[in-house]
Amino acid sequence: MEALFSVDALRWFTEAVFQQMGYAADEAASAADVLLKADLRGIDSHGLARLPGYVRLWEAGRIRVNAHPRVVYETPSTALVDGDQGLGLLVAPYAMRIAIAKARQAGTGWVAVRRSNHFGIAGYHAMLALQEDMIGIALTNASPLVAPALSLERMLGTNPIAVAIPAGEEPPVVIDMATAAAANGKLEILQRKGGKAPLGWIQDAAGQPTDDPFALQKGGALLPLGSRPETGSHKGYCLAALVDILSGVLPGAGFGPWVPPFVHFLPLPQDAPPGAEGIGHFFGAMRVDAFRPAEAFKTHMDSWIRRFRGATPVDTAEPVKIPGDPERAMEAERRQRGIPLHQSVVKALKDLSARMGVPFPAPVLQ
Amino acid sequence: MEALFSVDALRWFTEAVFQQMGYAADEAASAADVLLKADLRGIDSHGLARLPGYVRLWEAGRIRVNAHPRVVYETPSTALVDGDQGLGLLVAPYAMRIAIAKARQAGTGWVAVRRSNHFGIAGYHAMLALQEDMIGIALTNASPLVAPALSLERMLGTNPIAVAIPAGEEPPVVIDMATAAAANGKLEILQRKGGKAPLGWIQDAAGQPTDDPFALQKGGALLPLGSRPETGSHKGYCLAALVDILSGVLPGAGFGPWVPPFVHFLPLPQDAPPGAEGIGHFFGAMRVDAFRPAEAFKTHMDSWIRRFRGATPVDTAEPVKIPGDPERAMEAERRQRGIPLHQSVVKALKDLSARMGVPFPAPVLQ
Repeated sequence: MEALFSVDALRWFTEAVFQQMGYAADEAASAADVLLKADLRGIDSHGLARLPGYVRLWEAGRIRVNAHPRVVYETPSTALVDGDQGLGLLVAPYAMRIAIAKARQAGTGWVAVRRSNHFGIAGYHAMLALQEDMIGIALTNASPLVAPALSLERMLGTNPIAVAIPAGEEPPVVIDMATAAAANGKLEILQRKGGKAPLGWIQDAAGQPTDDPFALQKGGALLPLGSRPETGSHKGYCLAALVDILSGVLPGAGFGPWVPPFVHFLPLPQDAPPGAEGIGHFFGAMRVDAFRPAEAFKTHMDSWIRRFRGATPVDTAEPVKIPGDPERAMEAERRQRGIPLHQSVVKALKDLSARMGVPFPAPVLQ
Repeated sequence: MEALFSVDALRWFTEAVFQQMGYAADEAASAADVLLKADLRGIDSHGLARLPGYVRLWEAGRIRVNAHPRVVYETPSTALVDGDQGLGLLVAPYAMRIAIAKARQAGTGWVAVRRSNHFGIAGYHAMLALQEDMIGIALTNASPLVAPALSLERMLGTNPIAVAIPAGEEPPVVIDMATAAAANGKLEILQRKGGKAPLGWIQDAAGQPTDDPFALQKGGALLPLGSRPETGSHKGYCLAALVDILSGVLPGAGFGPWVPPFVHFLPLPQDAPPGAEGIGHFFGAMRVDAFRPAEAFKTHMDSWIRRFRGATPVDTAEPVKIPGDPERAMEAERRQRGIPLHQSVVKALKDLSARMGVPFPAPVLQ
């Protein structure tokens, strides 16, 4: 059901598609890098599988190729960026670099972004801070698919939280998590395979627990992390709300049920409050040595990582991991072997290839 | 099983106890205010019930009354505070006020604290930012009671995240949540009442799900938010780890299993890495108008709050709430009626009253 492709060939294809949309070579390379990183790290829902979606948004006039994101207001440690309806894959690194530059001067930098679009995996942008010995933070709101605790209505996105923290000899700690019990991409995998969803991921149109992975298409909703009121679904709701407020309300982007959906065939919300436009993001960068010497911090991070990896596991066959371990292992494997794409993704990319006049690569021999 | 006490009488008693420990009147009032706020907001585990614990830590020499917390390093938007082994209830507002002062100048302020002690409810400190039209953030690590995903060992505290966000005509959004599925205080309530815990709160000494509220005393552990691997317990682990790293590793406080336990009768960890001392906290303050005009933000916050309160509920008898609603309703009620204390808490406070020579108030007539 899957075919394996070379990383370089997929990168070439993706860059060519973005160039056909009108992006310059360096912009196309930058945007493609975000998508490829998702596939490399095993977050298949946010990689090449999303490329046709970006093209459809562009065709629908919701992504502007000649956008000029800009800083519209700033203080020593903050900035407000207007994304000018640009591609989130480009707006986000632009904004993150401003946060990093602010942190160099003021110790920390915080950038809220309005009028943007889907920015790929949050972890990519947070990790940009690592090479500067900074802690990186990236948040975004997203299409409303999640029901708050006690709600029948879908009001929030899967609103991810990504934080990247440098270490010394050990690899960095990289958190990149949806604030829903499970992200929509996991449901899509079950839909393709025909399995049942674990109870706790979704509710049906009556607000009751269900294991039907198609419940979302039947008026159901994703559940916040915590799943049920008695196991803390109000906490997952709080986290998703926090991401929505920092990413959406703070910059003046769409928020709550008024976030413009990623899929172009869903209508844009008509009753959004004035001055709440596009998808919003929030980025942070904190210089480690704005608190104490970086080497002392990194030595303790190495201790943290080793102690947690060495924690007594429930099952000796499954050692305790640190955040980022699974994605790092996957990236090492896929850089060697190549990236597997499901046949439905390959079909969509071949359709895109024909429409855009960009040849799609052949799979590698296995 | 409960008796009702006047807020003023409990406040007087608490201040008198702190004064008997050697605190000046203004310090005693400040510390008492944090504990009373917990009882008023319905977070009974963190209010007067904790007062004997602070006294025991003081008697054990782990809280220094004549501590002088101080800034040991700073940049325009950051500071590192050494808590000098002081009472967390006092160190935390001191550090939060530095964050607020930094935010006035630089747009945001971020303060990491080492060598502190238990600071009460995180929400109290986050809410200090509200009167300045700032978003307030407060994190702390705590006694290791929580097992990471896949771990048998207790490695993390219930490590709370508190964020307070100002609104306009509506009350603020106040998030104050443990990153465990349920905080230890909820277990203590079940232990007193003799009930069973919902599955998803705790694991037993073999790492298996259990409903025994005494499992923690038998070698079990609290579970991270998400409860089980298939419903996202790795995400709750990530959040608790994030709080531990920002509060503990960043300032050079204890971290992971090396956080000094709140209860004085548990031994201090002997194998902590050098230079990792005391409990750690992390505070943030962000001026709303460091991003865009405060009035525009507050208008949108009011829209956010009203839209979420108006979301179609699963059960029309249980409307959707915004974060902070339950605690605000509880505070309004208790300011009127008084604060109920469980008989076991009353007994502990009467013992304390005798030991400290401070009369304990009579309950109010009901």
